[in-house]
Amino acid sequence: MQQYYMPVKIVRGRDCVAKSAPVFASFGKKALIVTGKSSAKNGALADVSAALFANGQQAAVYDKIPPNPTVACVREGGALARAFGAEFIVAVGGGSPMDAAKAIAMLARQDADDLFSYRPTDDVLPMLHIPTTAGTGSEVTPYAILTNDEKQTKTSISHPAFFPKVAFLDGKYMRGLPQSTAAYTAIDAMSHAMEGMLSVRAGAVTDALAAESLRLLHAELPALTAGAYTDADRDALLLAATLAGMVIANTGTSPVHSMGYSLTYFHGAPHGRANGLLLPAFFEVCAQKAPERTAEILRAAGFSSSAALADALAPLLGEREKIGDEALRAYAGKASVNKNIKNCSVFFGEEDLFRVLKNSVGV
Amino acid sequence: MQQYYMPVKIVRGRDCVAKSAPVFASFGKKALIVTGKSSAKNGALADVSAALFANGQQAAVYDKIPPNPTVACVREGGALARAFGAEFIVAVGGGSPMDAAKAIAMLARQDADDLFSYRPTDDVLPMLHIPTTAGTGSEVTPYAILTNDEKQTKTSISHPAFFPKVAFLDGKYMRGLPQSTAAYTAIDAMSHAMEGMLSVRAGAVTDALAAESLRLLHAELPALTAGAYTDADRDALLLAATLAGMVIANTGTSPVHSMGYSLTYFHGAPHGRANGLLLPAFFEVCAQKAPERTAEILRAAGFSSSAALADALAPLLGEREKIGDEALRAYAGKASVNKNIKNCSVFFGEEDLFRVLKNSVGV
Repeated sequence: MQQYYMPVKIVRGRDCVAKSAPVFASFGKKALIVTGKSSAKNGALADVSAALFANGQQAAVYDKIPPNPTVACVREGGALARAFGAEFIVAVGGGSPMDAAKAIAMLARQDADDLFSYRPTDDVLPMLHIPTTAGTGSEVTPYAILTNDEKQTKTSISHPAFFPKVAFLDGKYMRGLPQSTAAYTAIDAMSHAMEGMLSVRAGAVTDALAAESLRLLHAELPALTAGAYTDADRDALLLAATLAGMVIANTGTSPVHSMGYSLTYFHGAPHGRANGLLLPAFFEVCAQKAPERTAEILRAAGFSSSAALADALAPLLGEREKIGDEALRAYAGKASVNKNIKNCSVFFGEEDLFRVLKNSVGV
Repeated sequence: MQQYYMPVKIVRGRDCVAKSAPVFASFGKKALIVTGKSSAKNGALADVSAALFANGQQAAVYDKIPPNPTVACVREGGALARAFGAEFIVAVGGGSPMDAAKAIAMLARQDADDLFSYRPTDDVLPMLHIPTTAGTGSEVTPYAILTNDEKQTKTSISHPAFFPKVAFLDGKYMRGLPQSTAAYTAIDAMSHAMEGMLSVRAGAVTDALAAESLRLLHAELPALTAGAYTDADRDALLLAATLAGMVIANTGTSPVHSMGYSLTYFHGAPHGRANGLLLPAFFEVCAQKAPERTAEILRAAGFSSSAALADALAPLLGEREKIGDEALRAYAGKASVNKNIKNCSVFFGEEDLFRVLKNSVGV
C-alpha cells in the first residue's frame, strides 16, 4: 500500500503574511513566535507582529533557537509557551526554528521525559510556519530534527500532529540571506527531492512533486553559482524547497541524511552542505545497484550522470573536509543503523556507506 | 496569493480497503455506507463490510443514490444517518454516491432549508471515500454537485469540511465497469486536469499534478479506445482521476463544466461525455485567445492541437447530439453566469460560449 498525506495549507505570494491576518486570527488570542537570533531580522517577524497586532492578539517571542536545535532550547521554549498560555505557535526562520517549533508545540501540551523515545499524542499546539530559507521543507513536514547528544547525532522525531496548519511562502524574506546559506539550503532541497524519489515509499504524487522541484532547482543553478538572486529566483527556490518537503513528508529521506548527520555533528558542516558533499558519490553507488531508477532521478534533476551532478555542486561546496578512515568507519556504522537505510529502495550496507563517505570526504 | 490545500489522506494499492480495518475503526462505532444501486456490486461494499465487521462496528447501507443525485435523496440519506446515529460515512461508487455522501454527512449534523443557499459549518460527519470509477475525483475534493431543479442545472455546493478524511484507491473495483462509463469518466478526469491548468488559481503544485494525470491518461488512450483494460490500466486511470481531482480541488473547473451541465440536465448526456463533447471546441477558442498557455496544456495532454484532441476523443463519444440554436443560446446564457467563468484565465463571453456549444453539438 502507498500513502500520500499533506494536510498543510500552503499560501504563496508576495506579502502573503501581511495579507493573511484573518488566518492568524482563527488560531486564538495568544501566539508564541519561535525564531532564531538572525532569522527574525529579515522582515518576517515584523510582518507577523503586524498581523497579530491588527487582530488584537498577544504574542511572546522566543528567539533563542540555535542552528541544530538542542533539547534544552525546545524545553525552554515549551516552558515559555505554557507560562504565557500560548494557543498557537508561529515559527519564523530556517529549518532550526521551524523544527524546534514543532517540539515546542508538543512540549507546551505534553510532558516528555525522554524526547527521543517519547510517543507524542495529537495534543500539540497548532502551528503556522514561515520559512526564511529555501531548503529544509520543514514547513510541510511532520519532522523535527534535534541534536541528540547522547547518541552523538541528529535525531528526527515525528508525528502527524507536527504538520503545521499553514505554511506561508514569500521569497522576500530571503533577500538578506548569506550566499553560503542560500547555496547549502538549495542543495538540501535538491537532496530531498532526489532522495525522496529513491525511497521505497515514493509514488506517483511524490515523483511528480520531486520532478517539478528538481526542474526549478536546475534552472536556479546559474543564480546559485553566481550568488546573485532576483526575487523571482528566491520565489522559485522557496517553492522548490517546499515541493521537496512535500516529497520527504511522505517518503522520508535516505542514507545521505544518515551519513550527513555525522558530518554536521562532528565537523560542523551545515546540513545542506553535508548532503551535497555526499550526494554525488551516493548516486554513483546507486547507479551501479539500480541503474534505471538512478538515471531517471538524475535526469529529473537535469544531470546526465552522478559526475555531472558532482560538477554542478562542487563550486557551491567550498573546500572539502579530509576525514580519516577510522572516523569514517564510525560514521558508516552509525548510518547503517539509521532507519533511513530501510527506507531506501537501494540497499546500502556498512561497506557501501563507508565507500560513499570515503569518496566524498576521505583523506 | 496562491493557495494549495489537500487534506485527504490517499491510500493506494490492491486490497487497500481490506488492509485498512484499523483506519475504519478510528472513526467511531457506527457507519452509514452511501452507495448507488450498481456501485455496490463490484466488491467494494463487501470489502468495507468485512473491515467494519472485523472491527465490531455497525453499519447501515443507503444505496439509493441515482446518477446526478437529487436533493431528495441526500435529505433521505441525511435523515437515515441521524436515525441510525452514524458517526461517520463511507462512500462507495462513482461521482454521484461520493458527492451525495458529502451532502448527507452535512445534513446528518446540520439543518439546511435551502441546500443551494445554505452556508455549512464545520460540523460534518467524517467521510471515507472509495471511488469505483476513475473520473470525478470527488474522493479528494470538497465539492458536492447536486441536481438543482429550480435552476434547471447542476449546482456545486462546497466546504472545506466536505474533504473526505481518507480516499482508498483500488482499481480492482473497476473490473466490471461498462465501457461507456470507463471512457466517459476518463474523459472527465482529462477535462479536470486540462481545465485546472487554465484556472486563474493554477499554480506550480496543481500544474505538476495535472501534467502527471494527463501523462497517465494519454498512455491509456489505446486501452480506452479498445475498451480493453488490464488491472494496471485501471490503477493508472484511477490514479490519474485522483490527481486531476487534487487539481480541481484547488483550481475549480472551467466553462466546459458550466456548459456541460446543460447537456446533462436537458439531454441526459453523462457528465464526462458532456465535457468531452465540448473540450476540443473550447480549447480551439482558448488557442486563439491565449495561444501559449493553451499549447502548454495541450502538450501536457499529449496533443499537438485542439484538432488532435478532437480526433482522440471522437471514438469515445459516440454520435453527437444535434441541438438547435435557440436551446444552445439558452445554455450559453446559463453558463455565462456560472462562477466557473470568473475562474478561467481565458475570458468566455456569452458569444464565445455559444460558439463552443454550436461547434460541439450544433445542428
